[in-house]
Amino acid sequence: MLTKADLQRLRSLREKKIREELGRFVVEGEKVVGELLAMNFPLVEIYATAAWPESQRANVVRLSEQEMARVTHLPAPSSVLAVGQITRTPLPPGALSHGLTLALDGVQDPGNVGTLLRIADWFACDRVLLSPDCADLFHQKVIDASKGSFARVPVHTVELAAALATIASTVPVLGCELKGDDVHTLPPLRDAVIVIGSEGRGLSAAVAARVTRRVTIPRFGGAESLNAAVAAAIVCDNLRRTAPR
Amino acid sequence: MLTKADLQRLRSLREKKIREELGRFVVEGEKVVGELLAMNFPLVEIYATAAWPESQRANVVRLSEQEMARVTHLPAPSSVLAVGQITRTPLPPGALSHGLTLALDGVQDPGNVGTLLRIADWFACDRVLLSPDCADLFHQKVIDASKGSFARVPVHTVELAAALATIASTVPVLGCELKGDDVHTLPPLRDAVIVIGSEGRGLSAAVAARVTRRVTIPRFGGAESLNAAVAAAIVCDNLRRTAPR
Repeated sequence: MLTKADLQRLRSLREKKIREELGRFVVEGEKVVGELLAMNFPLVEIYATAAWPESQRANVVRLSEQEMARVTHLPAPSSVLAVGQITRTPLPPGALSHGLTLALDGVQDPGNVGTLLRIADWFACDRVLLSPDCADLFHQKVIDASKGSFARVPVHTVELAAALATIASTVPVLGCELKGDDVHTLPPLRDAVIVIGSEGRGLSAAVAARVTRRVTIPRFGGAESLNAAVAAAIVCDNLRRTAPR
Repeated sequence: MLTKADLQRLRSLREKKIREELGRFVVEGEKVVGELLAMNFPLVEIYATAAWPESQRANVVRLSEQEMARVTHLPAPSSVLAVGQITRTPLPPGALSHGLTLALDGVQDPGNVGTLLRIADWFACDRVLLSPDCADLFHQKVIDASKGSFARVPVHTVELAAALATIASTVPVLGCELKGDDVHTLPPLRDAVIVIGSEGRGLSAAVAARVTRRVTIPRFGGAESLNAAVAAAIVCDNLRRTAPR
């Protein structure tokens, strides 16, 4: 049973401003909630209809289907809605000089950001950086598209150009562009930053100025460009292939 | 100025059944319509508001913003809506034995299908095959996500398992799976079929039975899988890298 205040609070969490104020976010759907529970991700509230297989768990607030239909953020309600706590970890000083970093510069589509988190997770990137104008990490579509990876990959929201300015000069900052070195010829790299710009605008000028090596995925046909997530995945596959193990 | 019958007809084209009946599809937005015009893709009707930069073209029906708002298929109307003619080319006999084919088995998300067309175009795949249960090629989201590639890549809708049964035995049918040969170790291949299954279910049993070589993208981290388009792109990048030129 939901109070009117709860209903209003849960619905309001679809807005980033409210999420930041309350320090809470919503995640919905059997699959993603199941993944987060399996990873012991801290969920502070769980609401479920009788259709949710785990609805007998302790601390689950049981809702009628009508209540779920009113509280859901989705076009079609699922059987479970959970609330997590927003935690933001500052980027440790010097972190970018070690390991593989995937840095997103103004990637605004939440589905793309989620897919990029999944790619970072697959290729064991040590961290993902989001510029402040990227889609919000706690947007439901980011969490959904990440298929659980959002809970596994360390993500930091930072002023990207400033963060890149602190990096050791021995660590290459790779920018994916239409004219650059063939990605297939990259030397083995254990430590690197890969920066990915927005689909429409590419890299911002301040971030582009920090790129030390432009890389290109060889094109054989007519398409003008590749989707940002696809490009990032191909660069990661090539870096991991050649990385010293 | 639009008649009521035109309005109704244009709106009805968002349904696949009607598109098939009338042999017409709708495409909207300055970017995609501009791309199609630049490629001389035959557009049989064009409707535009005064805001469309090319609204003075011959054969453009001028609409008020109110009319465009009523006729659009998009959540927010753009300044131009065009109608194209649906053409479907049968797969020529023997075609699959030559060149690179990207075959989609039940990929239902239209954004994914569009992204896969763009990837096929970038890597100069000779053709794309869609199983009948894939998202419809003439769905607006497929066309949008393909960024113009839908007009460049030959696409054939076929019963996939039956089509694969006709292929020369010397041509490998590569299936992307979690357990298979490391994609980095693929030998040079000029002729191959890459089959991609749906995100949720993977390959259908009938298509899986036609796969002659399972390939795997090495995983380094925690994600369970990669998005279908991302996986296809990595396989294409590896095949093209090693293909004899």
